[in-house]
Amino acid sequence: MAESLFTRIIRGEIPCHKLYEDERVLAFLDIAPLSRGHALVIPKEPAATLDELSDESAAALGRVLPRICRALKSVTGQQAYNVLENNGSLAHQAVPHVHFHVIPKSSANDGLGITWRPKTFDSTDAANLADQVRTALEA
Amino acid sequence: MAESLFTRIIRGEIPCHKLYEDERVLAFLDIAPLSRGHALVIPKEPAATLDELSDESAAALGRVLPRICRALKSVTGQQAYNVLENNGSLAHQAVPHVHFHVIPKSSANDGLGITWRPKTFDSTDAANLADQVRTALEA
Repeated sequence: MAESLFTRIIRGEIPCHKLYEDERVLAFLDIAPLSRGHALVIPKEPAATLDELSDESAAALGRVLPRICRALKSVTGQQAYNVLENNGSLAHQAVPHVHFHVIPKSSANDGLGITWRPKTFDSTDAANLADQVRTALEA
Repeated sequence: MAESLFTRIIRGEIPCHKLYEDERVLAFLDIAPLSRGHALVIPKEPAATLDELSDESAAALGRVLPRICRALKSVTGQQAYNVLENNGSLAHQAVPHVHFHVIPKSSANDGLGITWRPKTFDSTDAANLADQVRTALEA
């Protein structure tokens, strides 16, 4: 995989406002924040998208997320927040290295804006799709 | 914590289109999907928000996310997708039980709509904030 901005932050070649670091995970403040306290939590493993990440890195990242959310809640005083991870440029991914945004939300106009347009649920198609996903997961 | 819809799905009292289940995690199709294959990945532990979730459940959930994303990518054929976890009603959380949405995106109008309004970065405030978060995490 090509190196990204985040590879250079992990190596310490580009500075960051570090929040947390362990063997597999780094967390730091986003320098283009949607709200005060907007943080990025990334694996050190250079996976472009979440589906490419190893079980071990994904578990380590998952394990630390609640702690980081607790600390951000306590320090910013905001109770509401969104956790977002984008995959692919169509889905608004800007840097090709897995990153979980933790975005505090103080008001409707602050933080992450979400548009929710649910579709009609087709239960026959859903049953087929679920079968195929279960089969893929068992393979 | 009060029981939610998801507690009853975990217990099997309400049916779902199940994708995956282990000791700590359940995944199933969202019945109000933003796109075909929109899935929910939830811990069996009844935590309302991510900051309340145990390390063990968060690690188990994190570990399985890449596998579910891979299976959904393979079955739906969509390369782009968003992973979203909302905390608090202000942040659009609808069910008070932690749930990670995995939302395939086939086009700009399909899937999750995101509004991104970055603010000016105040590096002095960021340095103070990062100090406080590190202190909170070490406590």
